[in-house]
Amino acid sequence: MTCMKNDNQESLDPQNWDEMRQLGYRMMDDAIDYLSTIRERPVWVETPDDIRSKFRADVPEEPQEAATVYDEFKQDVMPYVMGNTHPRFWAWYMGNGTILGAMADFLTSVVTPNAGAGNHIGQFLEEQVITWMLDIVQYPKTGSGILVSGGSMANYIGITVARHVKSGYNIRENGILEGGQQLTVYASTEVHNCNQKAVELLGIGAKYLRKIPTNADFTINTDLLQNRIAEDRSKGFLPICVIGSAGTVNTGAVDDLEMLADICRKENIWFHVDGAIGAIAMLSDKVRPSLKGIELSDSVALDLHKWMHVPFEAGCVLVKSRSGHQEAFKLTAEYLQKNEGGLSSGKDWFSEYGIQLSRRMRSLKVWMTLKEHGRAKLGRMISRNVDQANYLAELVESAPELELMAAVGMDIVCFRYVIDGLDLQETNKLNQSILIRIHEEGWAAPSYTTLDKKYCIRVAIANHRSRLADFDFLIEKALMVGRSFQGVI
Amino acid sequence: MTCMKNDNQESLDPQNWDEMRQLGYRMMDDAIDYLSTIRERPVWVETPDDIRSKFRADVPEEPQEAATVYDEFKQDVMPYVMGNTHPRFWAWYMGNGTILGAMADFLTSVVTPNAGAGNHIGQFLEEQVITWMLDIVQYPKTGSGILVSGGSMANYIGITVARHVKSGYNIRENGILEGGQQLTVYASTEVHNCNQKAVELLGIGAKYLRKIPTNADFTINTDLLQNRIAEDRSKGFLPICVIGSAGTVNTGAVDDLEMLADICRKENIWFHVDGAIGAIAMLSDKVRPSLKGIELSDSVALDLHKWMHVPFEAGCVLVKSRSGHQEAFKLTAEYLQKNEGGLSSGKDWFSEYGIQLSRRMRSLKVWMTLKEHGRAKLGRMISRNVDQANYLAELVESAPELELMAAVGMDIVCFRYVIDGLDLQETNKLNQSILIRIHEEGWAAPSYTTLDKKYCIRVAIANHRSRLADFDFLIEKALMVGRSFQGVI
Repeated sequence: MTCMKNDNQESLDPQNWDEMRQLGYRMMDDAIDYLSTIRERPVWVETPDDIRSKFRADVPEEPQEAATVYDEFKQDVMPYVMGNTHPRFWAWYMGNGTILGAMADFLTSVVTPNAGAGNHIGQFLEEQVITWMLDIVQYPKTGSGILVSGGSMANYIGITVARHVKSGYNIRENGILEGGQQLTVYASTEVHNCNQKAVELLGIGAKYLRKIPTNADFTINTDLLQNRIAEDRSKGFLPICVIGSAGTVNTGAVDDLEMLADICRKENIWFHVDGAIGAIAMLSDKVRPSLKGIELSDSVALDLHKWMHVPFEAGCVLVKSRSGHQEAFKLTAEYLQKNEGGLSSGKDWFSEYGIQLSRRMRSLKVWMTLKEHGRAKLGRMISRNVDQANYLAELVESAPELELMAAVGMDIVCFRYVIDGLDLQETNKLNQSILIRIHEEGWAAPSYTTLDKKYCIRVAIANHRSRLADFDFLIEKALMVGRSFQGVI
Repeated sequence: MTCMKNDNQESLDPQNWDEMRQLGYRMMDDAIDYLSTIRERPVWVETPDDIRSKFRADVPEEPQEAATVYDEFKQDVMPYVMGNTHPRFWAWYMGNGTILGAMADFLTSVVTPNAGAGNHIGQFLEEQVITWMLDIVQYPKTGSGILVSGGSMANYIGITVARHVKSGYNIRENGILEGGQQLTVYASTEVHNCNQKAVELLGIGAKYLRKIPTNADFTINTDLLQNRIAEDRSKGFLPICVIGSAGTVNTGAVDDLEMLADICRKENIWFHVDGAIGAIAMLSDKVRPSLKGIELSDSVALDLHKWMHVPFEAGCVLVKSRSGHQEAFKLTAEYLQKNEGGLSSGKDWFSEYGIQLSRRMRSLKVWMTLKEHGRAKLGRMISRNVDQANYLAELVESAPELELMAAVGMDIVCFRYVIDGLDLQETNKLNQSILIRIHEEGWAAPSYTTLDKKYCIRVAIANHRSRLADFDFLIEKALMVGRSFQGVI
């Protein structure tokens, strides 16, 4: 022990806390300046090759000043991010974040508790947030839930509980092969592909996710669904789960959730709702009526980093049956047995409701966001995006060169530029070129999808910073670029 | 459209950016004060009932000042967190975080890009970090990897790739039932339970995770492993994966990774290493030799929020075969097709290598941590924890009342207090009581486990703030409490 007498007091803490404090102020200034002037910058800037090449360095050997590392961030990272904080970012489906949400992530990482286990505030804070979410989707207080990385994991958990509850034997212990009966899952052809990934991972097989054709409005055809369930039963398969979409990714369509709930009740099938896009719109007086029936589901996936604008990551899954949820996931090793007191006491640790054992305390930023803005305002912001989508659709319809490709679903608008005489392939190519130009100029960031093989420019307006003039601007630019191509095609 | 003329410019941005800036400075001050004085506070404080009751409120309806919300955090949340930033926190297995790591999480959430898709810096930053990790575990540069929520997900992904590559048919499309052959997975009885959870979720069944008995040093008995593989083959089962532990959760034991690699090569079985605890100790000259063979594995799980002290969450999985990794997960819907330019271009999006589509940019805090401290210092901090574990073991062995329960594995020490005449159950109860008292007084936070039915106080020293005197203090208190119980038992 003599060799240990000289206690080395080195740590990863800064040698000079005050310098770190000054650096913190500087970061705060830069962040405030960045977000308060976001509108003045291009939406997206391609990372130049000389910047990219800096990210092919060897492992750093020796320490660098924190301020130097920060300067590198400011110079080489910050200008080349995705751009989803911008008022004209409408790609895929994301939120913008907020400054208080970012501060909450800082505070979370300062105290950095593990929200997966133990008797501490992380447990109670998440219980609070889950209770709020249960209330928002009109689930009973007796339900359970957990914050997860996002919609993919939220859907995965819902389908896992369905598999556990409806397979009819101890599937966790014995596996799928011993069950001997093919399990089947149902959703529309418009279902988000994370649900297919979940079905694959759970060992059910992608082809047993029955993708049911939709009606003209891109909602699931419930007659065809019922036929397929009957057909599968006649083959000896075991239907375990129907996934309803509350806001499809392509067009924002909402399945007839009441009808799906009714079918599932009669058929003894788990009813899961993929509400990654739309479920949080229960906050909005304008959208809530279209979600009728969500409260009849067995589980629902939400994404609070989308239309509630919490910074990544903040997904959420709610399950009506707490016992079903827990039984599908709980697994207690000897090193996780609970004590009768102290840090290791408590009950219903969140690690018993999902895959993760160590878990970031995601609850703080959700809690702070809901307290800062309140339910009413968050709902208003959602409603406004729906109004903006309708405004944009009117702009599209009033421009002869543009074609609206689907009914506006919530806040999603799909359109394309059409030139007489171009065939499908040429028209698709034209619209892809228009979109790339709009990105490359940094004017706006819509995304794209394909409906009936037609390439569409897709505008998904989950954006608390967008204003009406932003949509005028988009259409102006789309027409300008389209016309410039028209001359040369 | 007339109704839309008055453009409502409300947003979730602060009405007064300067007030928010001032609040940010205050948070920065509080965070610096908190971390720089952490040693002066109790490790853990139980959340009082009156605080807990505040977290049973209804959904907030109306907005509150951001500063008010922050004051609530400071008063009701911050004092009651888990305590793992403290120099005497040694429970389960966690890191402490760092102030620059927390700042990196703030910056991440300010710009809040989606690291799952798109052509932007989040992609290149994560590629850089993965390249560094490949180098650290001595994998070839051609390998792939992804940052995930933690060890549970990292192991899950490794085992999923094993299932995909070794099952010998299109398991994603057809499911497990159609394969018709029972898959089996192997690990020691000491394997972390997240691996069992993965095997359950993947549809293989917990009982087909063959838990092989260990040697006296808690490493897997490779003779018994080979026997079991042969027995399973003779039954017609298909062995797909062996999981080696690089640092078991109970005692920090490291399986003979070279021998496991050799067995897997001969048997054509995937070799996955659960290195959530120990793999990052490849940074340490002291530990690296004991990890020999890790570079021969097919995949390895790491946890950078453990011994590298990145704030939650920062797990990582590395896979030697990029194509195997991608083929197990890639699923490209029409709304995720890549464009030839703009934001939606690029290749090998990280969403093609795991479950998540939307992903927090976890790479920034890993990148900043490695740059701030460098490989050499991070390795030194790990080595010092190992020295401290040996120091603690010597303290235990020099106290007649204390019994060392296992050889020191890396940085994990298990011991118990023994009183002559007490039976096993009484001794277990005694040690649980000692542990609870140590927690409740806020002196330290070891955790516990059970070895051969014996309840042990378990000290897992992944702590960059611990000093030798902290272990003197722990032993002093353990003896004091033990003796106080001795008088009354």
